Amino acid sequence: MSSHQIDTLTQALARLPGLGPRSARRAVLHLMKKRQSTLDPLLAALQAVAENLSTCSSCGNVDTSDPCAICTDTRRDDRLLCVVEEVADLWALDRSRLFPGRFHVLGGRLSALEGVRPEDLAIDSLIARVAAGGIDEVVLAMNATLEGQTTAHYLAERLETFPVRLTQLAHGLPVGGELDYLDEGTLSQALRLRRPVA
Amino acid sequence: MSSHQIDTLTQALARLPGLGPRSARRAVLHLMKKRQSTLDPLLAALQAVAENLSTCSSCGNVDTSDPCAICTDTRRDDRLLCVVEEVADLWALDRSRLFPGRFHVLGGRLSALEGVRPEDLAIDSLIARVAAGGIDEVVLAMNATLEGQTTAHYLAERLETFPVRLTQLAHGLPVGGELDYLDEGTLSQALRLRRPVA
Repeated sequence: MSSHQIDTLTQALARLPGLGPRSARRAVLHLMKKRQSTLDPLLAALQAVAENLSTCSSCGNVDTSDPCAICTDTRRDDRLLCVVEEVADLWALDRSRLFPGRFHVLGGRLSALEGVRPEDLAIDSLIARVAAGGIDEVVLAMNATLEGQTTAHYLAERLETFPVRLTQLAHGLPVGGELDYLDEGTLSQALRLRRPVA
Repeated sequence: MSSHQIDTLTQALARLPGLGPRSARRAVLHLMKKRQSTLDPLLAALQAVAENLSTCSSCGNVDTSDPCAICTDTRRDDRLLCVVEEVADLWALDRSRLFPGRFHVLGGRLSALEGVRPEDLAIDSLIARVAAGGIDEVVLAMNATLEGQTTAHYLAERLETFPVRLTQLAHGLPVGGELDYLDEGTLSQALRLRRPVA
């Protein structure tokens, strides 16, 4: 049914997260049938991003400019720095629009299993940013996983000599979480970190 | 977090079937982080398809050549013609590799509700193909919906003057179908169309 070029496009789309071979095929058909409203805009948007794609040399975010839009946003608070594992985490936190400061992307987490050592992550540049001064608080926003928390502890040790407040994200029940459906780890942590009723 | 260009790309991707705003964002991040293995191939594949995209003037399939790969495939049987509603149906049937003949895409189905009349569909070109001769059997492979079956009946009337065998897809229990979970319509049809045990 389909030419080599269509197969190539289907395979390229199927490589995206969230799309399998079947949905990629539906997407290709959609693109081909509604060229003006879907294929042409997607092609133009991809080209624009491909031309300008860059990794921010300051924070590690991927954007179409370097420094990125967050690092150049003058409304943000320079004294607040949030450290995350991945760019996806930065985007997730930034979407909530709850954090008014800057970010720093490590590019991963320490992992003995996967052989990820401190020198494989953007830790030296983090230390340099903190050492340069002007930062009051560093939020260690690692994932609530064993490796994420190991990384947070390591960073806390590396940063304790600097005059900054080190904080971490709260752990406990997620919003809407029902005790009956939550895993034991979350329950045990929620219990251990319980607070007095205000 | 994201520039105007990234937003535009996210919106273009979110317009594809199977991708929502959230998965489009993940896809964009994936594209930007793994440029060489994802963004560049996707861009090249889209460009190739965009350059060559065409609708087959014979059967109505969308492909990167006109006539399409199916119409030019010399291994196919010219005497067998399968009529479908949409290009998606053609692709679905062709994927199964069970039909060795040619196709004809109507581009929709008759619908009083949506105001789709015979002249809105590729029916004249179908009649012309059959009238040209060389076809032994026309398979009316409409969807098993009210409108699909109405369209099949209409086509059967239009084609009955030609010396071709008119057939339709079998209706009944789908493979793996359990009576307890099937709708009444399917059950009633499966009962009505019951066959002697071979």
